[in-house]
Amino acid sequence: MIYLDHASSTPVSEKVLKAMLPYFSEEFFNPSSAYLPAKKVLADYEEAKGKIAHSIGAKASDIVITAGATEANNLAFTSIQGGSITNDSSTLEPTRPPVFTGDSFCRRRLDDGEHALELDESSVSNTVLYLETEHDSVRAIAKRLGGTPIKVLKNGMIDLKDLKSKITNETELISVSLVNNEIGVIQPLAEISTIIREIKIERLKRGIKRQLLLHSDASQALNLLDINVSRLGVDLLTLNSAKIYGPKGVGALYISHDARLKPLVLGGGQEKGLRSGTENVPGVIGFSVAVEEAKKHLNGNRKKYAKFKKILLDELQGYKLVNRKNSLDNFLVLCYDGLDAERLIFLLEERGVYVSTGAACAASKGVRSHVLKAIGLSDSEIAGSLRVTLGETNTEEQIHEVTKIINEVISEERGRLLRAV
Amino acid sequence: MIYLDHASSTPVSEKVLKAMLPYFSEEFFNPSSAYLPAKKVLADYEEAKGKIAHSIGAKASDIVITAGATEANNLAFTSIQGGSITNDSSTLEPTRPPVFTGDSFCRRRLDDGEHALELDESSVSNTVLYLETEHDSVRAIAKRLGGTPIKVLKNGMIDLKDLKSKITNETELISVSLVNNEIGVIQPLAEISTIIREIKIERLKRGIKRQLLLHSDASQALNLLDINVSRLGVDLLTLNSAKIYGPKGVGALYISHDARLKPLVLGGGQEKGLRSGTENVPGVIGFSVAVEEAKKHLNGNRKKYAKFKKILLDELQGYKLVNRKNSLDNFLVLCYDGLDAERLIFLLEERGVYVSTGAACAASKGVRSHVLKAIGLSDSEIAGSLRVTLGETNTEEQIHEVTKIINEVISEERGRLLRAV
Repeated sequence: MIYLDHASSTPVSEKVLKAMLPYFSEEFFNPSSAYLPAKKVLADYEEAKGKIAHSIGAKASDIVITAGATEANNLAFTSIQGGSITNDSSTLEPTRPPVFTGDSFCRRRLDDGEHALELDESSVSNTVLYLETEHDSVRAIAKRLGGTPIKVLKNGMIDLKDLKSKITNETELISVSLVNNEIGVIQPLAEISTIIREIKIERLKRGIKRQLLLHSDASQALNLLDINVSRLGVDLLTLNSAKIYGPKGVGALYISHDARLKPLVLGGGQEKGLRSGTENVPGVIGFSVAVEEAKKHLNGNRKKYAKFKKILLDELQGYKLVNRKNSLDNFLVLCYDGLDAERLIFLLEERGVYVSTGAACAASKGVRSHVLKAIGLSDSEIAGSLRVTLGETNTEEQIHEVTKIINEVISEERGRLLRAV
Repeated sequence: MIYLDHASSTPVSEKVLKAMLPYFSEEFFNPSSAYLPAKKVLADYEEAKGKIAHSIGAKASDIVITAGATEANNLAFTSIQGGSITNDSSTLEPTRPPVFTGDSFCRRRLDDGEHALELDESSVSNTVLYLETEHDSVRAIAKRLGGTPIKVLKNGMIDLKDLKSKITNETELISVSLVNNEIGVIQPLAEISTIIREIKIERLKRGIKRQLLLHSDASQALNLLDINVSRLGVDLLTLNSAKIYGPKGVGALYISHDARLKPLVLGGGQEKGLRSGTENVPGVIGFSVAVEEAKKHLNGNRKKYAKFKKILLDELQGYKLVNRKNSLDNFLVLCYDGLDAERLIFLLEERGVYVSTGAACAASKGVRSHVLKAIGLSDSEIAGSLRVTLGETNTEEQIHEVTKIINEVISEERGRLLRAV
């Protein structure tokens, strides 16, 4: 079997699983319990959180553990405050973020007892901006909040002109993934945060205290990019264990001191009240080791995938490379115009090769890729596009073998179609 | 080490861990992917959900997997519809539940595009009823929704008179845990659901179509009670893997056809859109095995714990048993009035015995037990109460040994206090 779909799932690495095992049946205590063995588990948990945080240049206290990237993305959007522009300092007071009602905001008065609700129409205008090529977990929540999409250029990069034109005095949150999950394009977050910084300064001059936060879903990035939240200038950053050879069901959200969040679930008050529920200790221990391993092999993996990518581009035939520039070396989107990628997946599977047409959750619904559409591919080009994502399960031998298999399948398929005509 | 705190955490059983292992590094595929190995993982996942559902007399399609009981409890409360009483059939239409704003409801109009919000003051009056002794994950969300607590009797059982008196025409959701997490008291859910059924019939006669749902947190119950949702008459039931020798970070919510829920997180649309995010396959596989094992050893464990409990009650000295009746045999709350339970925990720990003062998450915050207060214990009685919860790690030898240790620690402590006077 040659697995080339590492962007949709990665196996848990040996080191990660080894680190997790003691926490299932031996170090199983509830981290909130009073006795020492439980306190030791809590200490290990906090140390693991520290490792995850340090890998992005943050402290353990800056991150909240979630059940995955989807929850972390949803949690990031609770940072929205709502309300209208004001020149007094009231918006600097720790107001609670509003709760979205699906198609409008309800803003809470500061006094908790008050049973009053305010609808703030103004806060609907570009309060939320998100890149049109974001993953469903960002798109869905952004749309619910009346968010406005930011265009991408034909190369998949953010259209900075479009971004600038859409930031209003009402804009509070801008969500741009660091690496796109379908085409692997790396977005220029540092540039975006520079633009945001300038707007913040200009807002302050005009006495506008409204927040302007940058959120980024870095789910796909952690094992090939050296991430530092200060360098990137992000206020909120989503991390995902399942994409970097860690366990499924674990993620994290980095939260800067400028962002004030609201819990999605209430209860025992774990994670400083932002995410109640008994801690998933083995999951977080595993996640932390996965992060450390990712950091350790960053450069080695980059070189390896660059080499593999070159082999594929050189030896494969009759394709058009969709993601030519600024994308991770383990991401290749190959367009075989006129062919049916869905069919190719099954033909390749028969030969032991596993690829995809894009995001697994979208693919399963038979939805046509909104990402490929956004970068200007025609319907037939989209229908003929395969996503190949390299990973640690791949060897150079596999890559040479897979190019042969893909070429054969493609020519057989083209031949079949010619005969059919 | 003698561990007597199984209500706060249980070790993952050998069988459970063995069943989980293949799904970390071998069967690691994303259940949403298109190729067969991934479809096989999805099938295994669905089969596991089926086992969990069947154990409570439900179908796989009736349950939603969550990251734990806390999330499941929070999800259950999204069933609230809000709005005012009506005699027409409009409330029977599939309206979306409202989103709570912390201190009031906002109800969404049916037309999605509409940016309108409605505040419904009336819906604040007893729309939500919850037992005053519920776990924090129920109390916190219920309080946020302006819920009204239902009293318990001195024995910890629900005060049915108080319940009946508090159900209004506005009441939509009643939350009563099957087994209390601090004193193990089993609530008469079948009786409660009979009362609810009568009220529903009476409401229908008067043309009131408002829903009246019964939610129960069964986190502590699954390994000692034979649970059947129809027999209990619940509309929403919370299950917890971490309390029945399954992995942490996994739970489930049973949802009857009468309940309409709203997702807490949006995204890829997993779990029928009610709980997006890549499925935690190993976790759910483990949970399903834990459920099967719990069912298999139900009667054996009951007998074992009844025997252990008798030994403890016979051999221990100078205590007052707090939970005398209607409680699970593995729960003992021992009150040593005049002593400091916090101190006893440390003294017992020095002798290798691990007990608690109550809910771990509450204990960690040094909060005095709201449960023991609710059943009428004085502050000094609460301060002197230990929670002992038996489990599969315990042997009869341990129980005999622990009674000696506890008796010694108690008499030493009483002696010390006398000398101090």
